[in-house]
Amino acid sequence: MAAPVTLQGIIQDIVDEMRAAPDRGKVATYIPSLAKVDPARFGMAVYTVDGECHAGGDDEIGFSIQSISKVFSLTLALGKAGDQLWERVGREPSGTAFNSIVQLEAERGIPRNPFINAGAIVVTDVNLAGHPPREAIGELVQFVRYLAEDESIAINEEVARSEERTGERNRALAHFMKSYGVLRHAPDLVLGTYFHACAIEMTCRQLAAAGRYLMLDGRHPGGGRTISSIRARRILSLMLTCGHYDASGDIAFRVGIPAKSGVGGGILAIVPGRASIAVWSPGLNANGNSQLGSLALERLAEATGWSLFNPGRLSDR
Amino acid sequence: MAAPVTLQGIIQDIVDEMRAAPDRGKVATYIPSLAKVDPARFGMAVYTVDGECHAGGDDEIGFSIQSISKVFSLTLALGKAGDQLWERVGREPSGTAFNSIVQLEAERGIPRNPFINAGAIVVTDVNLAGHPPREAIGELVQFVRYLAEDESIAINEEVARSEERTGERNRALAHFMKSYGVLRHAPDLVLGTYFHACAIEMTCRQLAAAGRYLMLDGRHPGGGRTISSIRARRILSLMLTCGHYDASGDIAFRVGIPAKSGVGGGILAIVPGRASIAVWSPGLNANGNSQLGSLALERLAEATGWSLFNPGRLSDR
Amino acid sequence: MAAPVTLQGIIQDIVDEMRAAPDRGKVATYIPSLAKVDPARFGMAVYTVDGECHAGGDDEIGFSIQSISKVFSLTLALGKAGDQLWERVGREPSGTAFNSIVQLEAERGIPRNPFINAGAIVVTDVNLAGHPPREAIGELVQFVRYLAEDESIAINEEVARSEERTGERNRALAHFMKSYGVLRHAPDLVLGTYFHACAIEMTCRQLAAAGRYLMLDGRHPGGGRTISSIRARRILSLMLTCGHYDASGDIAFRVGIPAKSGVGGGILAIVPGRASIAVWSPGLNANGNSQLGSLALERLAEATGWSLFNPGRLSDR
Amino acid sequence: MAAPVTLQGIIQDIVDEMRAAPDRGKVATYIPSLAKVDPARFGMAVYTVDGECHAGGDDEIGFSIQSISKVFSLTLALGKAGDQLWERVGREPSGTAFNSIVQLEAERGIPRNPFINAGAIVVTDVNLAGHPPREAIGELVQFVRYLAEDESIAINEEVARSEERTGERNRALAHFMKSYGVLRHAPDLVLGTYFHACAIEMTCRQLAAAGRYLMLDGRHPGGGRTISSIRARRILSLMLTCGHYDASGDIAFRVGIPAKSGVGGGILAIVPGRASIAVWSPGLNANGNSQLGSLALERLAEATGWSLFNPGRLSDR
Repeated sequence: MAAPVTLQGIIQDIVDEMRAAPDRGKVATYIPSLAKVDPARFGMAVYTVDGECHAGGDDEIGFSIQSISKVFSLTLALGKAGDQLWERVGREPSGTAFNSIVQLEAERGIPRNPFINAGAIVVTDVNLAGHPPREAIGELVQFVRYLAEDESIAINEEVARSEERTGERNRALAHFMKSYGVLRHAPDLVLGTYFHACAIEMTCRQLAAAGRYLMLDGRHPGGGRTISSIRARRILSLMLTCGHYDASGDIAFRVGIPAKSGVGGGILAIVPGRASIAVWSPGLNANGNSQLGSLALERLAEATGWSLFNPGRLSDR
Repeated sequence: MAAPVTLQGIIQDIVDEMRAAPDRGKVATYIPSLAKVDPARFGMAVYTVDGECHAGGDDEIGFSIQSISKVFSLTLALGKAGDQLWERVGREPSGTAFNSIVQLEAERGIPRNPFINAGAIVVTDVNLAGHPPREAIGELVQFVRYLAEDESIAINEEVARSEERTGERNRALAHFMKSYGVLRHAPDLVLGTYFHACAIEMTCRQLAAAGRYLMLDGRHPGGGRTISSIRARRILSLMLTCGHYDASGDIAFRVGIPAKSGVGGGILAIVPGRASIAVWSPGLNANGNSQLGSLALERLAEATGWSLFNPGRLSDR
Repeated sequence: MAAPVTLQGIIQDIVDEMRAAPDRGKVATYIPSLAKVDPARFGMAVYTVDGECHAGGDDEIGFSIQSISKVFSLTLALGKAGDQLWERVGREPSGTAFNSIVQLEAERGIPRNPFINAGAIVVTDVNLAGHPPREAIGELVQFVRYLAEDESIAINEEVARSEERTGERNRALAHFMKSYGVLRHAPDLVLGTYFHACAIEMTCRQLAAAGRYLMLDGRHPGGGRTISSIRARRILSLMLTCGHYDASGDIAFRVGIPAKSGVGGGILAIVPGRASIAVWSPGLNANGNSQLGSLALERLAEATGWSLFNPGRLSDR
Repeated sequence: MAAPVTLQGIIQDIVDEMRAAPDRGKVATYIPSLAKVDPARFGMAVYTVDGECHAGGDDEIGFSIQSISKVFSLTLALGKAGDQLWERVGREPSGTAFNSIVQLEAERGIPRNPFINAGAIVVTDVNLAGHPPREAIGELVQFVRYLAEDESIAINEEVARSEERTGERNRALAHFMKSYGVLRHAPDLVLGTYFHACAIEMTCRQLAAAGRYLMLDGRHPGGGRTISSIRARRILSLMLTCGHYDASGDIAFRVGIPAKSGVGGGILAIVPGRASIAVWSPGLNANGNSQLGSLALERLAEATGWSLFNPGRLSDR
């Protein structure tokens, strides 16, 4: 099994391969702030359970975490609403594109899971309870800083404003759910908060740090518990089955590790009890997931044996 | 962590709870042979990696494995067609009912995954290559006997004939895929074979025995390799994301173990490197999965900590 | 064939039957102003080509014309945009509910026809060109007054405000189309105009008067041409195939006359060259069309022979 | 209004225009017998209410009437089952492709209307009642001969056999409806009959002759009544709203005459009380309707004023 020194080597090999990769996918162009990101970027950071961080490439360049924020929002909302959250959002893979409104109509405004846009908008509505939007956003940013133990994490306001200007499809989803009574706050307030959450900017190192509580069964790396063990495991289960939109099954099949991607090209992946991994490369594949990011995770899983379906984790004993 | 003697105790507690359960779901009624099964039945058997079998309840009563046969058919087909199989069937959760034809139209006749009916019909088409149907069925039964190391496993011909008489929806799926050129053989031949595979009858002990190769990363318990390690892991991944039709996400969420259910009330569940589990109770919930079978798996996972998302498997070391 | 005096008798018989009808459907309740309308109301007015008006029941009580306004908006928009309008909205029956968003996704934001909500929102967007919303509304009201030759027609502002407060589904449709670039103005401006158009209030006599230009092949009853002959006929064709949402085929089958219904319980029906008919009864059937209004049209068509499919119109000669 | 001598001139002008048309659409290729038809063919025949037939082009060349047979089958089935037929098939435009299975699932096996394939298969099931398939086919052919007053009309057996070999999508539809209990006979028997009905071969002259009962409000041109007046009008209504699959609204809009098309390139169109029209040109447009056939009808409607929405029919008096 991979020792820390070997892990650094594996990461370096992956960084070298990805730097040279000819097909890097297509950078998201729906807002200018994302469109102008250099497609040649690739970064990677891995926190292991012993507290060390191994990283390579552009691991200290900030990027827009976008939908990866859905993991942190969900964690917060479960703390607020508990299992009642599941009356307003499902737990099934969606079988359709990340922003499809069709399934939402078939299921009368209840989103399939908290990691498609509609589901994350409901989660945001939960997090708004008792707050003005500005405070709800502040609370989420504080929560991410606490998870990552890094006070420098912040929202990119230019991205947030761009999202607001171009978010017509998300507005449609929000008004649609409002028509079914699934949202409790005004769609505009919920969306303002949602767009700001998507605009959080982090480096690979910060993102891997922020994911450690999921590697640690819900415990904070600095001590204490962020979330119960059962909830941490359930969030991982949702990441495995729903974390990559309509390619979730494919990622589970090829990589076998719970992960959540964002349209900014980042992916957060968690090996329970072993590693919290962040990769970033801005070019996307046809499913809207980072092309080199997914490939890097596949390489890392092959090299380390870090698949949930690897029985070797047991026979190590 | 549960020692063998404790595992037997856990199983007995579950058997006692399930025997007394007031709400047992509804037995499938679409064919007489299934409709007449006693809803009071409950059986369970667990093979552990040390080769022992712990069982309880009606663990030696045969039942119709139905869709659980899709796991064995897929294993055979991957041996024949290799990864070319994935050109004719997808690997994504379906997001809709097990026998929906809608998604099949949207995706031009390519089923979402090999564990919905349409996907298993394609897998059967692969297994028919170069065989008359009678031989293809014989090959599958021989394969299951070899996996379980039990020559007494056989097809219930009455069930097979009933399936043929009532299988109009499956016939629609097959002709529909034929219209897209996804099937290579005549729909009637493929369906005859498919219906016979569903009619294989096994006890919980036999089924748990047959599943050991997946617990053992593809190796046969008697020595040698049944399937490559990577394929075993990928089959497990598909069981986790697609094994319970439109409730797959919910089972992953609640139980966290790869499993495949059948309309006869059986479930095969695999803990990589640790256990091959069979449960059976004929009453089904609204999603068409065994009501007490799913609950028994949830109890077993809680009592043993056997979740893929449990980091304790690592910290045991 | 019915002489004027007989027509009055037919209308009176229908009024008597409808006054006594036990099953009156359900009044729309989504806004208070509609919910409080007396379900016992029934009115009817028929303008014939000779300029006479025959009426009965509550023919002088104002009601909210709602979706019937889509006919007048479309007429205005064809005058502004001409056949270019058909690049942004289709001409096919929808096959689904009046406010379905599913079909809109399948067709990339292009509504099926101008008489479903999404289509009428596009038509409103066309009518907004070069106007602030207040002027666009004023123009539409002026147009309806000109058609009906009645300056007293006005918008019910309470209804308009209620529509705005409850119109989440329409907001979803508008933002959804905006996301595809099908709308040119801001969704809020378009919807404000759209909701005001729906809130126009008219009596049966006024509505039948306003529809005369369609009876007269596009000519204004006071002389001159409101719209070309070919456009008048095409509007009638759309009323026949798309005028009653997902029950359009059924109305064509039972009544055989082009008609457009509104959720306020009104229906405008046109017999080319012969009659302009308005009926009103606030109770709706399961398809959202006036229950007694549809029945009254069926009775009128039976009694007069006014079906498009009646060859007698010819053999009269 | 067009006198007979003028009508002949109009037809000749249309024939000349269509003979020279550069874009003729694409001939159906799914069976060899259709694929080999010469795309240069164009024929037209018009029976007027005075009993005369005006024709031009390839008006005496036989072609496969295909879905136009659905009009005759429906007429027969209404005679057998009466309005009970409408419990098993709807009367609404479909909003989707002619052989879509999606809508059929949404509506639990009840086809939207009798002119999509699924609906015509149900109609065929009705016509099979109490007959072996051979007799049911014989009855339909006899009925068409009686309508056209032409004993030479027959089925092209080569086409029928080809349809059977390639009809997998229709087989899927039939088994699907059987799974819902909507069909009463075995799908194979129903389909055998259905495929034979599609393979009836007629010339334009024969087809226009066969349609005269619909022009004559249900009366047979030779005297007596083929079908009641109300049923004749309702069949025309269905032709207008559903006769051209997903382009029915467009044809109603452009032509304004009830019509039914077939994939062999034929169209039967009826002007109530005035004309029964057959056109044929084998090249199809994107909606599967005859490209030049639809254009020819549009030209004929323009030249004659034969639109249902033309009020001039009245003012002639």
